[in-house]
Order: sequence, then C-alpha cells, then structure tokens
Amino acid sequence: MTSAHMRFERATEKVAGRVRKMRPSAVRDLFAAATRPDIISLSGGMPDVSLLPQSAVRKAAKAAWCDQMAQALQYGGTDGRLDTRRVFADLMRDEGIRCKPENIIITSGGQQALDLIAKTFVDPGDIVITEGPTYLGALQAFSAYEPDVRCIPFDDHGMRIDLLEAELQRIGPGNPRLKFLYTIPNFQNPGGVTLIPERRKRLIELSHQYGFIVVEDDPYGRLRYDGGHVLPLKALDDSVVYLGTVSKVFAPGLRCGWIAAPSGVLAKVNLVKQGSDLCGSSFDQVLVEHYFTDTPWQRTLRRFVRTYHERRDAMLRALEAYFPPEATWTRPEGGFFIWVTLPSYVDAASMLPEALEAGVTYTPGDGFFPDGRRGRNCMRIAFCFESPDNIDEAIRRLALVIEQKLELYRAFIEAGELKEDKR
Amino acid sequence: MTSAHMRFERATEKVAGRVRKMRPSAVRDLFAAATRPDIISLSGGMPDVSLLPQSAVRKAAKAAWCDQMAQALQYGGTDGRLDTRRVFADLMRDEGIRCKPENIIITSGGQQALDLIAKTFVDPGDIVITEGPTYLGALQAFSAYEPDVRCIPFDDHGMRIDLLEAELQRIGPGNPRLKFLYTIPNFQNPGGVTLIPERRKRLIELSHQYGFIVVEDDPYGRLRYDGGHVLPLKALDDSVVYLGTVSKVFAPGLRCGWIAAPSGVLAKVNLVKQGSDLCGSSFDQVLVEHYFTDTPWQRTLRRFVRTYHERRDAMLRALEAYFPPEATWTRPEGGFFIWVTLPSYVDAASMLPEALEAGVTYTPGDGFFPDGRRGRNCMRIAFCFESPDNIDEAIRRLALVIEQKLELYRAFIEAGELKEDKR
Repeated sequence: MTSAHMRFERATEKVAGRVRKMRPSAVRDLFAAATRPDIISLSGGMPDVSLLPQSAVRKAAKAAWCDQMAQALQYGGTDGRLDTRRVFADLMRDEGIRCKPENIIITSGGQQALDLIAKTFVDPGDIVITEGPTYLGALQAFSAYEPDVRCIPFDDHGMRIDLLEAELQRIGPGNPRLKFLYTIPNFQNPGGVTLIPERRKRLIELSHQYGFIVVEDDPYGRLRYDGGHVLPLKALDDSVVYLGTVSKVFAPGLRCGWIAAPSGVLAKVNLVKQGSDLCGSSFDQVLVEHYFTDTPWQRTLRRFVRTYHERRDAMLRALEAYFPPEATWTRPEGGFFIWVTLPSYVDAASMLPEALEAGVTYTPGDGFFPDGRRGRNCMRIAFCFESPDNIDEAIRRLALVIEQKLELYRAFIEAGELKEDKR
Repeated sequence: MTSAHMRFERATEKVAGRVRKMRPSAVRDLFAAATRPDIISLSGGMPDVSLLPQSAVRKAAKAAWCDQMAQALQYGGTDGRLDTRRVFADLMRDEGIRCKPENIIITSGGQQALDLIAKTFVDPGDIVITEGPTYLGALQAFSAYEPDVRCIPFDDHGMRIDLLEAELQRIGPGNPRLKFLYTIPNFQNPGGVTLIPERRKRLIELSHQYGFIVVEDDPYGRLRYDGGHVLPLKALDDSVVYLGTVSKVFAPGLRCGWIAAPSGVLAKVNLVKQGSDLCGSSFDQVLVEHYFTDTPWQRTLRRFVRTYHERRDAMLRALEAYFPPEATWTRPEGGFFIWVTLPSYVDAASMLPEALEAGVTYTPGDGFFPDGRRGRNCMRIAFCFESPDNIDEAIRRLALVIEQKLELYRAFIEAGELKEDKR
C-alpha cells in the first residue's frame, strides 16, 4: 500500500456527517448514458440553446470583452452588478412583481440560490416543506444542512393546500423549527402542474398564520403555452423570497440566477454568500445584462415558447397514442416536464436499463422525494430538448418497455399472485 | 407595522446558528470606501486586469460565443469541462505537479473551492489548522461549518513548523476531529512569506504522522519577483489537496479555480458541489481554456510579474523611507501583500478612519484571525493595484497617521502610563 493510497483512505474517512447522508443523483448517471447517439433523452431539463441567435450572443459578449472589459474581468460585489440587478427587476416587473434592484442578489444559477437559502436558514432537524415530488436539485441543496423535509402532494391545481394545512397543524403555529416552504408554483418540476390563484392566496395566509418563509422558485414562469398568466406569490406578498434565473429564458451555461427578498433576509444571504464564492462571474453578468438590453430577446423568447409548445403537444399526443390505460400523466400549461404515474407495482428505477436498451431515457420518480421511497412507480419525462419526431419515437419506445412490464404483472394478477392496483 | 415588516422580523429570527456567529467582513466596507477617487487603496487584493491585452480576451471570448457556442451556453458537468481541466493540469505541470485532468474539479474561483473543502470535511467542532494570520476569505468559508480553527504563527520562512508540531502534540495523533491543515505556502495572504523547502518536507511528514489532510492554496505561485521556484507541497505528496485559480494570472471576473485531489476526495467534493451549484459557468470555462491555449498568455504573465515587481519594490522603498522605527514588516518574494506589525498598543482597526481621512486604506490585521482578538496591531498592505508613485504617496500618508499615534503613545510611555513594547 502506497503512502498516497493510505492518505486517500484516511481522507474519505474524514468526510463530514452531512456528506455521509448524501445520495449520488441517479439523473447524473443518466446524463452520461444519454450521450450515446442512438438514445433519445427525456431525462434532462436542458433548454434548447441552439434556438439562440448567434448575433445576439455575439453582441452581448462584445459588451463584456470590449466596452466593459475592465469590470467584466475584475472581482465584483457579492450582491452582483447593480446594472444587471436592474435588468432582473425589469424581468420581474413583467410578471407583476415590484422589486427594487437593491432587494436582489445575483447567484450562480438558481442552484446556488437554493444552497444559499438553506445555508442561511436551516439548522439540522429544522422543518422545510416542499411539494412532493419536487426538484431534486433543491433536495440536494437542502440536504447539506440536514433538514426534516415534509412533502405535500399536488394535484392538477398544484400543491394540495388542504394537505399542507393538515401538516401545518401537526407542526403547530409559530414552531421555531419550521423555517420555509419551497414551491415551484409554475409548471412545477417534476410535476408540470401550476398552483391556481385561490391556492396561492391561501398559501400566503397560512405562511403568516403559521410563521414560515415562502420560497418561490420560478425558472419556467415565462414559458407558458396555454392559459393566462397567474400572478407570482411574490406579487401577492413582498415578504416572499423569489428565485429567478436566466437558465431557461437565455442560457444556463452563464450561471446567472437571482434572489429577490426583503433587505433583512438579503443581508444574511450576502454574509453567507461572501464565504461561498466571494462574488459571481462579472463577465457573465455583463453579458446577461446586455443580452436583455441590447438584443431582441423577446423575439427569441417567443421562439423558445413556440418550439417547446410544439414539443409538449407532440409528447401529449404520443402519450395518448402509445401509453397503456393503466398510466396517468399531468398536462402542463408550460415549462419542460410531464409527470407520469404507473401502477404501484411498477418500479421505474429498475425499469431504466430496459428503457436504455430500447433507446430512451427518463428520470425515475423516487429521486424527487427526500427519502427515495415514494414515487417509485413514477417518472419525469422532459419535452424541452428533443424534436417532435424524436419525442414521438421516444414515447413509442418507452410505451413498449412499460407494456412489457405490465403484461408480466397482468399475468401475475390474473393468476391471483398480485392485487390489482386501486388508485 | 405592515405585514411585510412583520414577516421580515420573523425571517431574520429564523437564521441558522452558523449565520448568527458570522462577522461581516471589515474589508468589504473598505472596498466601498476605496471607491472615493482621492483615496489610494492598499486594502484590496485585486489584480490589475488593465494589463491584459484586449486582443487576447477577444480571441478567447470568440471561442465561447462562436466556435463552441452550443457548449458554452449549456449546462456542463459538475466537475467542469475536460478540456479546461487539461489546461489546468498543464499549468500545474509547469510548477512541478503531475496531475491527470480526471483528478481536477473546476470551481467558481478559489473561494468556492474553500467552501467545498470545508463543506465536505468539517462537522461543527472539528479542528482545522491554518497559518495565523491567514486569508480572511478562507476563515469566512470555513466558519459556516463551525470548525475549531487553530492558528500557527509564521516567520520569514513561513509557518513555524515547531509550533505546528507542539499544537499537533496537544491535538494528538489520529485525532478524528482533526480534519485538515490549510496553508498558502507561496507569498502568503496576508503575510507575504514563503514556506521554505525543509519545512514543506516536514509538514508532509507530520500530516502522515498525525493523520490530517494538507490543503495547499496557491493563487500567487506564478507571481515570483526574486529567488527560485519552490516545489509545491502537491509535488512532494500526491495526497495533498491543491487549490489553483486563474484569478491572479488571468482574471478574477471569470471565477475559474480548481481543486486537484485524489479521486476519493474528489468524488465527495463532486457530490457536495452538485447541491451547491450544479455546475460552473461553461462560458467562462471555454473562455479560460482558449486564453491559455490560443493567446500569448506567458508574455502577459511576464508583464504582470514585471509590473507587480516594480510595485513591490516601490512599497518596500517607501516603507524604509517613511515608516517609524517601531514598525516591522515582511519582505515578500512574490504575490500581492506585505504584513506590517506595529507596537502592541496601536489598534490598526480603530486607526482606519484617520487613515481614510488622510487618503489611504489598508486592511486591519484582526480580520485575518478567527477570533478577531489577535493581530490588532497589524495591517495588510497590498501593492498589486496601485502605481509605484501612488504606492509611495500612500505609504507616506499612512506613515504620518501612524507617527501621530506613536507620538501620543510615546508621550504616555514617557509619563510612565504605558509599558514600552517588548518584541
């Protein structure tokens, strides 16, 4: 045994308790698998950046390497550039939110915002409420701070507020362990569902009654294909902590997100962020600022919406055409994802190798729950990245894989060896 | 009281224990003050990015917005782009380190690397050893994970290994609470001192004897103005965790640093990084990669070295010319900083308003210790950013402020009201 080897062993023994509890993400292995050219990927949440006009990117980049090179290459403030924060304030105003640039801190994508919020508020054992299922990256971010995550199911109208209220009653009003509720009200990840206005209003009321912070994550809000705009929670109550990002309306490779929050909250987040990264990329912030001020970005956004709209329709059509009657799925009005529920005896994670063999990937549902026990018969399928034809073919392949599983189980059920699914 | 106000109060009450213990950084307020045009700043550690040729930045940026736009705008892997990691492996090879790109993870500047290392290894109460004084951003990063930081003084030859050994004896060999030793061996921040080869060898031996990870932070290693290259700790022992960054040899606005470590350590860091930011800026990574492959960056680096060399010389000359005999200071062979020690009865933090009044800033020494009690009679002065003439003028101004303080104290001492300093 070499000395370096001994040291390696010792180093891994030294990891902190928070890391020992972390589970590697199943989605990452899928991403790796999805690079095989014959596989159609329904697993990733990647926007189709090929829709971005190079002229716009060139113009925005030129601001960074030329006109504002000195600032773009230098350290910036922890809160981020004021001019870029102004752009984000304008983007929020379009959605009905009034927010001053001073009440915004720029983050390295939406993911860093999730980390900073949890790092600022969560002590081990503190209660965090989320939709269940919810964004697995949020669960990963939160898990480092060891919260007790309580999941509230959704239906077609978003989070079940009646079940939330029952959970809050169990927790009790003013419980100091209850820190925040994390929600993706628009075109939820992974559910695709949208929280209806009445429930938004009630959620805000409950936050005051029980004393918790509402964290509203809105990466997909501008990607709506049907129905009318629903006012963000932040527009209903300024004390809401709102998370935005340019990842889905411009480009995730630039890692530019933001937190809009009351100044008391932001002061604490700033303190935490100083230690986390000192400051974000000045270059990316200059580029993003100029993309949203000097280019016809609204036209590009309409192109995104049109494209994803077609892909969503293609996926819904294919699901109707190919999926077995035992399967149900959500019908999102926007965003990237559809949530599929299969009979409870199907394990979506263990079915994945067969799907890969058949040339299609999806994200198994258990990763979207903190314990990995729920959602085993569910899957998230993304329509953002593939062409309508590819989506059709991917759903056809996936249906065949599911059908094979179901046939097996149907035979068991007929033989009386399995109880039929009652949902 | 408005509802938003009530919620704000409640939100700040909800902050985690780790945040309640955090102290805002004095340096940040100084940065703000230093924007007044009449003030000469010796406080920041900002590289002089005006030395970068725009043609090189343009060429590197073009790779990102043009040739590799699809990758530059898209999500990347958590570890960072393999091609960029190859560049960092090459940069380390120049320094004498053999490291495969697979053993590198790209971070959002050196600061995120510090956060990730502490997040991966430190449970509350765990022991971390640092130089004392040490980089305040490292102390900030570590503090979120609530370690017991033990500081080892340095002399002109770097960390006092005899004092380290005494501390290790108190901690005991194989103590599971002892996690890592953090050192900046080259041109230390804030000390400017360099760890000599004999001590590097002994430090590695002690790490094996007592069972701790060595974390080597090397942002300034390529900025040497006198003397010969000293082999990095990582070159002596592959189990060392090495932190690199392009902030001082290219541009900090791009937030590109890296961790080079054994694969077992990196696997854990990757898991932690997934939750922290999912991935770094692909755009910045493409740009950095092409800066170091397609432009005459070595020539630019020589320009950096020549410029900082002149500025260091100007500062050392001015210190000799203007500073009172009671003051002592380090004589760095490279890097950005000089560490000044004043008589123990001078409080550098409380003297700062007078210095600002006189038109000069510096960084008070107490911020470079975890408890803020030590280093009160010390200051860090940076020679990286100002011209030789400005540095001369700044040191002249600062000497006057110090001289006024000393005169006051000399009068007290003569009157027998203060004991003379014995150091």
